[in-house]
Amino acid sequence: MTNMAASKSYTLPADLPLDSGEALAGVEIAYETYGELNEDKSNAILICHALTGDQYVASDHPVTGKPGWWVRMVGPDKPIDTNRFHVICANVIGSCMGSSGPASLASDGQPYAMRFPVITIRDMVRGQIALLDGLGISQLHTVIGGSMGGMQALSLAANFPTRAARVLVLASTARHSAQNIAFHEVGRQAIMADPNWQEGDYYAGAAPDAGLAVARMAAHITYLSEEGLTDKFGRRLQNRDTKSFGFDADFQVESYLRYQGSGFTQRFDANSYLYITRAMDYFDLAEEFASGEGDAKLADAFAGHARGEGARFCLVSFDTDWLYPTAESRHIVHALNAVGAPVSFVELSAPYGHDSFLLDVPALDRVVEGFLK
Amino acid sequence: MTNMAASKSYTLPADLPLDSGEALAGVEIAYETYGELNEDKSNAILICHALTGDQYVASDHPVTGKPGWWVRMVGPDKPIDTNRFHVICANVIGSCMGSSGPASLASDGQPYAMRFPVITIRDMVRGQIALLDGLGISQLHTVIGGSMGGMQALSLAANFPTRAARVLVLASTARHSAQNIAFHEVGRQAIMADPNWQEGDYYAGAAPDAGLAVARMAAHITYLSEEGLTDKFGRRLQNRDTKSFGFDADFQVESYLRYQGSGFTQRFDANSYLYITRAMDYFDLAEEFASGEGDAKLADAFAGHARGEGARFCLVSFDTDWLYPTAESRHIVHALNAVGAPVSFVELSAPYGHDSFLLDVPALDRVVEGFLK
Repeated sequence: MTNMAASKSYTLPADLPLDSGEALAGVEIAYETYGELNEDKSNAILICHALTGDQYVASDHPVTGKPGWWVRMVGPDKPIDTNRFHVICANVIGSCMGSSGPASLASDGQPYAMRFPVITIRDMVRGQIALLDGLGISQLHTVIGGSMGGMQALSLAANFPTRAARVLVLASTARHSAQNIAFHEVGRQAIMADPNWQEGDYYAGAAPDAGLAVARMAAHITYLSEEGLTDKFGRRLQNRDTKSFGFDADFQVESYLRYQGSGFTQRFDANSYLYITRAMDYFDLAEEFASGEGDAKLADAFAGHARGEGARFCLVSFDTDWLYPTAESRHIVHALNAVGAPVSFVELSAPYGHDSFLLDVPALDRVVEGFLK
Repeated sequence: MTNMAASKSYTLPADLPLDSGEALAGVEIAYETYGELNEDKSNAILICHALTGDQYVASDHPVTGKPGWWVRMVGPDKPIDTNRFHVICANVIGSCMGSSGPASLASDGQPYAMRFPVITIRDMVRGQIALLDGLGISQLHTVIGGSMGGMQALSLAANFPTRAARVLVLASTARHSAQNIAFHEVGRQAIMADPNWQEGDYYAGAAPDAGLAVARMAAHITYLSEEGLTDKFGRRLQNRDTKSFGFDADFQVESYLRYQGSGFTQRFDANSYLYITRAMDYFDLAEEFASGEGDAKLADAFAGHARGEGARFCLVSFDTDWLYPTAESRHIVHALNAVGAPVSFVELSAPYGHDSFLLDVPALDRVVEGFLK
């Protein structure tokens, strides 16, 4: 796949400083908006997308033609009501749908590839803030994100405490666990093992699609629950009555995974997958705010929200999410409690595992709608 | 890697019939024994190994030089006491440590590669039974297995109910779930995506080690618990004080996984990995005994053990095993209860996830020792 033109694009007027110490020049941020911005610019909601998401939250995807990834949540009279709110969703830096990433051209006219600097979740948020500055939005009504989007929402709240009045975090975590890192490392190794990867310099030739597909397959399992997989597929065979005694996709779940893997390569850049998973693995909000004395305390990250003088928070977890289980959300809630920030928290019951935040969970609709009231 | 000579080998005197309908000629079974067989041949214990295990249960591995995979459990005065028992462990067919598998030579003098027939857990057990026939052992004191070894123990009990007086099943299942199949499919796709795989015909050239390493990495995560990974590695960095902002193995867990992946390729054949994972995915003991009327009932598989006239069973699960969780063992126990077979069952607490059956869990030693009394 190639880097996509976005419907709207903003070029940052200044270099973007990065956690690595580098600075990125000429950063492009591709974004979509829905609904009108009101006169005092107080009705803006920033939605932060997940690892393989993009800005097409409620409009058709330009490559796949599929509906936006959160149309069930965002639109007129939807829980995030675009009759009332101005919704902004920007492609994160490092990604491949129009914002600057490894597939973008560097100053020498060649794709950055692995010359693109390693970025962090905070760097993505710096990009989001720069876009908001460009749009003249000093404070968001709400910042919302699920999964990696939730990490960005937390990072925005921690690093730019005045920029959002409400923070809604779904199915997320304040730090990547060893198991989270391990699954991502499998995906990176699958990409790097593909001879087409060519140390990242594949843009003139064939992309490492086989490796990227394997990475996606491994990750996809972590987005679903064991129960959900059993309900959806069980041990049912695909288009056959008996086992083939071969290596075709005998089982429906095999066929489904292969389809997920190959479909993903149509719309995503393998180097972006490397960079974004790296950013997620590096994410440890407590560590960012560590004083250097003893263990890092997550509460220190929320000092800007002490005694109810900052944002209102809402955390949602799902009981079948084993990627970022409820304990991770509870850990965040405890840190917010410790500084006296107003926070509501609910663990919802849904059979879909981590992906529940994207799927038909009516209870989630009610939580989102209620929090935005 | 190449097919290894084993210390003992038995050539089956007749073709081995397979579930696929094919029959395999000239099957070799490589095996190890420990302790003396008594005069009436009543003290034999068959240990069935897991997916990537082998016959070197209590002796050094000929390739890696490492101690046998269950030395803590098997030996003089150990829970499986070789002063008292004659312990047999055979490399399963389809594997690569001396028993017939895809790396073995077919009648045309070339490796079978993907011409090797797709086998099942029951086919592996047919091989074990043929070996016992060759050794003149009509009834085992006990058949023991963990993980895929447990599947073989269950299959042996179901298909050859008079051949073992005791059946000990650790951290196992009577059928592979959709999630189990999904993880295996990722591994198979990783191997098949490696250009060195060459449709399985790689024995004269470079092996698909990169793909096999990725397969092993993905599987390895499923053998450990999230808590175990956190305790062992957490977010600790590997040989550095700060993040590299690159794609080296910054985190210890990354370094560990890479080591597991590359080490595995030294001792295992990629095609064997395909065949054995396929056998595991095909495993559904209830389905094998289905009458065709309505849903298959697992209890039907244990008809040969009805009313206490068959073997004594013992099932052990581990509370942190998310690959084959306790519910899977309980399902087997209920089926045994339904036919009135004597069965004891315990869920042990251990932090190591699925691999607990291989590791230092003193409570397991006591269960094994007690069951063999």
